[in-house]
Amino acid sequence: MSEYPLAPASGRLRGMSESLQLNGERLWARLERLGQVGALVGGGVSRLALSDADRAGRDLLVSWMHELGLDVEIDRIGNISGTRRGTRTGAAVMTGSHIDSVRAGGRFDGSLGVLAGLEVVERWNELGIETQRPLVVSAFTNEEGARFAPDMLGSAVHQGALDLDAMLEVHGIDGTRLGDELERIGYAGTAPVAARRPSAYVELHVEQGPVLEREGFEIGAVEAVQGISWTELTFDGTPNHAGTTPMNQRLDALHVVAQLACEVRRVVEAIGGAAVGTVGRIEVQPNLVNVVPGSVLCTVDLRNTIESLLREAEAQCFESARRFAAEEGVRLTSRSLARFEPVPFDEGVISTVERCAQARGCKTRRLPSGAGHDAQMFAPHAPTGMIFVPSKGGISHNPAEWTSPDECLAGAEVLQDVLRELADAPR
Amino acid sequence: MSEYPLAPASGRLRGMSESLQLNGERLWARLERLGQVGALVGGGVSRLALSDADRAGRDLLVSWMHELGLDVEIDRIGNISGTRRGTRTGAAVMTGSHIDSVRAGGRFDGSLGVLAGLEVVERWNELGIETQRPLVVSAFTNEEGARFAPDMLGSAVHQGALDLDAMLEVHGIDGTRLGDELERIGYAGTAPVAARRPSAYVELHVEQGPVLEREGFEIGAVEAVQGISWTELTFDGTPNHAGTTPMNQRLDALHVVAQLACEVRRVVEAIGGAAVGTVGRIEVQPNLVNVVPGSVLCTVDLRNTIESLLREAEAQCFESARRFAAEEGVRLTSRSLARFEPVPFDEGVISTVERCAQARGCKTRRLPSGAGHDAQMFAPHAPTGMIFVPSKGGISHNPAEWTSPDECLAGAEVLQDVLRELADAPR
Repeated sequence: MSEYPLAPASGRLRGMSESLQLNGERLWARLERLGQVGALVGGGVSRLALSDADRAGRDLLVSWMHELGLDVEIDRIGNISGTRRGTRTGAAVMTGSHIDSVRAGGRFDGSLGVLAGLEVVERWNELGIETQRPLVVSAFTNEEGARFAPDMLGSAVHQGALDLDAMLEVHGIDGTRLGDELERIGYAGTAPVAARRPSAYVELHVEQGPVLEREGFEIGAVEAVQGISWTELTFDGTPNHAGTTPMNQRLDALHVVAQLACEVRRVVEAIGGAAVGTVGRIEVQPNLVNVVPGSVLCTVDLRNTIESLLREAEAQCFESARRFAAEEGVRLTSRSLARFEPVPFDEGVISTVERCAQARGCKTRRLPSGAGHDAQMFAPHAPTGMIFVPSKGGISHNPAEWTSPDECLAGAEVLQDVLRELADAPR
Repeated sequence: MSEYPLAPASGRLRGMSESLQLNGERLWARLERLGQVGALVGGGVSRLALSDADRAGRDLLVSWMHELGLDVEIDRIGNISGTRRGTRTGAAVMTGSHIDSVRAGGRFDGSLGVLAGLEVVERWNELGIETQRPLVVSAFTNEEGARFAPDMLGSAVHQGALDLDAMLEVHGIDGTRLGDELERIGYAGTAPVAARRPSAYVELHVEQGPVLEREGFEIGAVEAVQGISWTELTFDGTPNHAGTTPMNQRLDALHVVAQLACEVRRVVEAIGGAAVGTVGRIEVQPNLVNVVPGSVLCTVDLRNTIESLLREAEAQCFESARRFAAEEGVRLTSRSLARFEPVPFDEGVISTVERCAQARGCKTRRLPSGAGHDAQMFAPHAPTGMIFVPSKGGISHNPAEWTSPDECLAGAEVLQDVLRELADAPR
């Protein structure tokens, strides 16, 4: 790495001296400027996909891309890509994320990954750094899924996981057609989709969870996006008088759900690792202090980064649910609400993230992503990985979302190191 | 019992031949006739206390009392009492119940006890039977508490447990004043309250629970009215992302409630006997499939016929609740919604009910009452007991409430035997 300009040692760099420094103030200023678009009173942003605020954010992003000399393309689903040329032709290294938000979201979710890509480009431009492969910085349409379903729609169409024409026909929560909204805001582009595969894809994102902050890590090397299993279970027993019905004559649907909720905790703790399980929703009928619950609906959310272990958790929890129901004499019906297999990331990219972070003196650990990200759409087709930086209190999808300037910069610099290495890697 | 007219052996009497027979058809006809007052389409009755339907039921009852030659008194809270004189003066034996109903109730709850008392009087009149003590048959005002709170209001005022003037000022769910409604329907009587103590009180009632039917008993000798403990517990943890929050970093309020619900079942089963416990109501915040529940409210309903064991259940359940909350790092607040001590009945009356039932060949068992009854207001002042007959499916406070003609008659005949014995008992 001797061709990099030398940076002075600093506290943040903990004695590591030979790393390219990005301009943290410039990165932060762009985060603040983009955060003003769709800003909410009291903090946070509301930039629902293809809204007027999203258009304003896109316009700002495109203007910055032009200022940086990138070749800007808008594809037919509205994804924005800015390309910095390499010294050779061929597949580019890609980075990016999204700039749409949930209805009342934070300023970092998505935006950090896109703006860190721009900062890498600007710094390389300043220093005259050339890479063999082109570098593409992208912002994908409708990652949040808060206005149009499904989420990660733009990156999925980009990589051919979803059909373009079908997605243009999607209608949003406000009844509008996605294709019409793309036209309305001027982002119905002409570049083809499902046509371009990068040589590698790396995305910087805020963790949206509490692990890095609580355990004192600055950089997370994301191993995989968790697989998700959502199941709704309904238990039908018999509502009865809480005073006159002896314990041995009860068909208490809530008792079964209570046992199941305890069992979900026990099962996922026994499996360990990245396994998590949650009973998040309960609806009790008739829900009165003095009536034995006759019918209870509950949901079970199980996640893991390893498909076989996710199946193991499902098998154990639902077998227990059947047994508890049978023991109480309660009828069980269930339906799947969602089921996604885990998306593992590339071991080479994961270890590169770890190595680059350690080289900068950043405390790093591997961890799964609990949420979905655009990166997962690239994982089947190219070496893919993600870099996480801490989220204060684990809070996200909330105006209180926060990652400090130093944390943002550390993530962007690790991203730079990884992109540089991948862009100059031998074919 | 040789002075009783002899009854022929029958299947119902299972070979017992020397017992006084009541007129089951006449009792059933009165149940049907009173059931027409305030009748609901499709079955059941709606005779909210002091409504027009209640007035019509009262008028019918009073007309029957006059036909039977009873001395009819209406007291200042509207209780109706009909006295059949004894051969001596002094404290009377009392029986009775109520004829008000919940908004959509059954034809047996309360009415059976009052009309069985009338049938005893009519049969004694027919046969010229005299008793030493007077017999009083009463119908108490507002037992259900469905229009005016509290329940058992008339019998409580009758025995001095509640203040007459305060109760006349009670306003109902429709905003009306109880004293005004008594005047309006013509049942603001002049007889004093809190003045008359019976020598004994025995009440026939439908079980309103499933025990007798499921276990094949015809007569229940009620040991006590259960004490009731209602507590609302609120657990405040932290709502978190179900995907990104590791299991060991959760403050899951629902997990604590699930543990508590399992513990309530365990505790009351370990205490055994008449102990019952129910978690009947749960409110989860935010109640979403993919959010670790941050706040959960639940209710715990504990009951027992023995105060010390009820306290033991409370102590164990709430100590466990505190421990579970502390282990999860969740804050617990609680408040009492209701707390009534058990009301034990008189061992002499209980064993008399058992003996009389067995003498008629009726399968009988002791059991607690899960619901409150007028009888409990007499228990502190006089030997008191109750007789239960089966409720089909344990259903009550519902138009589907049902007790068969044979079951009603069996209960009335045991009531007759007990009243006869108590009315001729030595002072």
